[in-house]
Amino acid sequence: MTITGPVVLDAMGGDHGPAETVAGAVEARRAHGVPIILVGAEAQLSRELRRHEAEGEIAVVPAPHAVPMSERGAAAAALTGSSLAVGCDLVHQGVGGSFVSAGSTGAVVTCAVRGIGRAAGVLRPALAVALPSLRGGATVLVDAGATADPSPTMMAQFARLGIGYARSVLGRPDPIVGLLSIGSEPGKGNRLTCQAEELLTGLPLPFTGNIEGHEVLSGRADVIVTDGFTGNVVLKTIEGCVRTVLTMAAREGAAAPERLAGVARRYAPETHGGATLLGLRGTVVIAHGSSRATTIARACAVAHALAGTAPGTEAATS
Amino acid sequence: MTITGPVVLDAMGGDHGPAETVAGAVEARRAHGVPIILVGAEAQLSRELRRHEAEGEIAVVPAPHAVPMSERGAAAAALTGSSLAVGCDLVHQGVGGSFVSAGSTGAVVTCAVRGIGRAAGVLRPALAVALPSLRGGATVLVDAGATADPSPTMMAQFARLGIGYARSVLGRPDPIVGLLSIGSEPGKGNRLTCQAEELLTGLPLPFTGNIEGHEVLSGRADVIVTDGFTGNVVLKTIEGCVRTVLTMAAREGAAAPERLAGVARRYAPETHGGATLLGLRGTVVIAHGSSRATTIARACAVAHALAGTAPGTEAATS
Repeated sequence: MTITGPVVLDAMGGDHGPAETVAGAVEARRAHGVPIILVGAEAQLSRELRRHEAEGEIAVVPAPHAVPMSERGAAAAALTGSSLAVGCDLVHQGVGGSFVSAGSTGAVVTCAVRGIGRAAGVLRPALAVALPSLRGGATVLVDAGATADPSPTMMAQFARLGIGYARSVLGRPDPIVGLLSIGSEPGKGNRLTCQAEELLTGLPLPFTGNIEGHEVLSGRADVIVTDGFTGNVVLKTIEGCVRTVLTMAAREGAAAPERLAGVARRYAPETHGGATLLGLRGTVVIAHGSSRATTIARACAVAHALAGTAPGTEAATS
Repeated sequence: MTITGPVVLDAMGGDHGPAETVAGAVEARRAHGVPIILVGAEAQLSRELRRHEAEGEIAVVPAPHAVPMSERGAAAAALTGSSLAVGCDLVHQGVGGSFVSAGSTGAVVTCAVRGIGRAAGVLRPALAVALPSLRGGATVLVDAGATADPSPTMMAQFARLGIGYARSVLGRPDPIVGLLSIGSEPGKGNRLTCQAEELLTGLPLPFTGNIEGHEVLSGRADVIVTDGFTGNVVLKTIEGCVRTVLTMAAREGAAAPERLAGVARRYAPETHGGATLLGLRGTVVIAHGSSRATTIARACAVAHALAGTAPGTEAATS
């Protein structure tokens, strides 16, 4: 059991701003016992903390600039003094044990790579998301959106990072790896995936070969490797598909909406607690931009738990 | 109203072979009034036709070789005498008005391009699938798996092909086009998608910009353009996700399985009648490999209706 530093929370990230992030920090502290450092516009954060009578419980580190949610945010994130840059630097310095943001994925990835740094040997980071599978466990989709144009070698590293995550976070001792493609046989796919498949086949990994789209949620593989473009499209397609199917079922009177809510919750960002950025020197959890306080709190709890196991570093060196 | 020739059906394609394809041909003929030419192993097809007492109703053109469902099938399909090659040639010669196969997508695409030929100016064909959307209509996903590594120019052509399909098949006079990507703003995506977005923005098309995965089924766009790799992964992910969500809902007792079946049917291959290969000189419908007789019959009916409107040719020249 490692004792890890507090979770550094980007209080300016997300669609709803400090009102929700600060409420989430308070909930993380009070409901989950997670120590938090808030980073952002000092006066605003103090005001929010006062509303929760939590000024003594949670530290604030000032960061004058907020990073906008737009793609341009990724460039702006480089600004010294943004809540992302300051937050990542706190983890780099060892003041914080992990970093959480509901900001734009692109901006968080850019800042985290620059501020926290990649683990030894890792070419590009990858985003891991645990999806509930039909068999009852979870499947790790990696990369779910960090690196849109990886090389085949980077994708082989994503497999190792995913294995590390499945072992340390999902407690799966011998995770099976599949490669997302458009046919189950070797040699099916686009150029990138075919090259990645050749590499994966040659590595000493528990590689089961190609996995097709309809098997993503089936539980056939514990780790599903793909490029960040395809992975992000798949992740969001599942999100939209779950919503569509349940709305249609409710509309057709197949079941009352509240009875279907249980299934919806399984695939909601609230449940999985956000995506984890693997391959860095520190733990980074990216919460959904639409996150409310409870989701932020859960992301903080996940980040705190993960920081103890440090899956990024372990995976990179395995 | 154009009078079109009979539907040429590859009787050897699909997971279940002639027993189902011939039954499907008989159903297409008797239930939908569609004229059919069966292509395949003559003795076997005659035997199946006798079982339905349909020997006088449906013509058989012999093709000695069956194309296996495996990827290797794509190469084997080039063999003169395969049911795919003979079938496509019948359309090329004008004997048949359209071609239907439940064979391997790769093999059908290879054979159709070679045997029927691309429409003037079309660089690569694209597979179109109409997905039911939350707004009640359908959205055309194009390319759903014909061209795994298109160029940006090819993707701009897919937009035109998709518009032609939406107009002629879905009866949408002014279809809106979206580009599948991983962020709604311009400049978000992988290299290929960003280049395609630049091209699409410069064309006189009703282009609404990037569409994210969670909007695929929302109805925001009538035509969603993507490369054949991403499109096929998305199509199959939706297929698996619908099954998973409805299975989970049934397991949790949210609704009886038979009450959920209506939603499942909307996304079943039986409903959409197969994928249409656009950009060729003739209509080609690819049915799901697992198709049973009723699905084959529906694919034949769709092909026959489409042949009258010839969306591939229209789209290519628009």
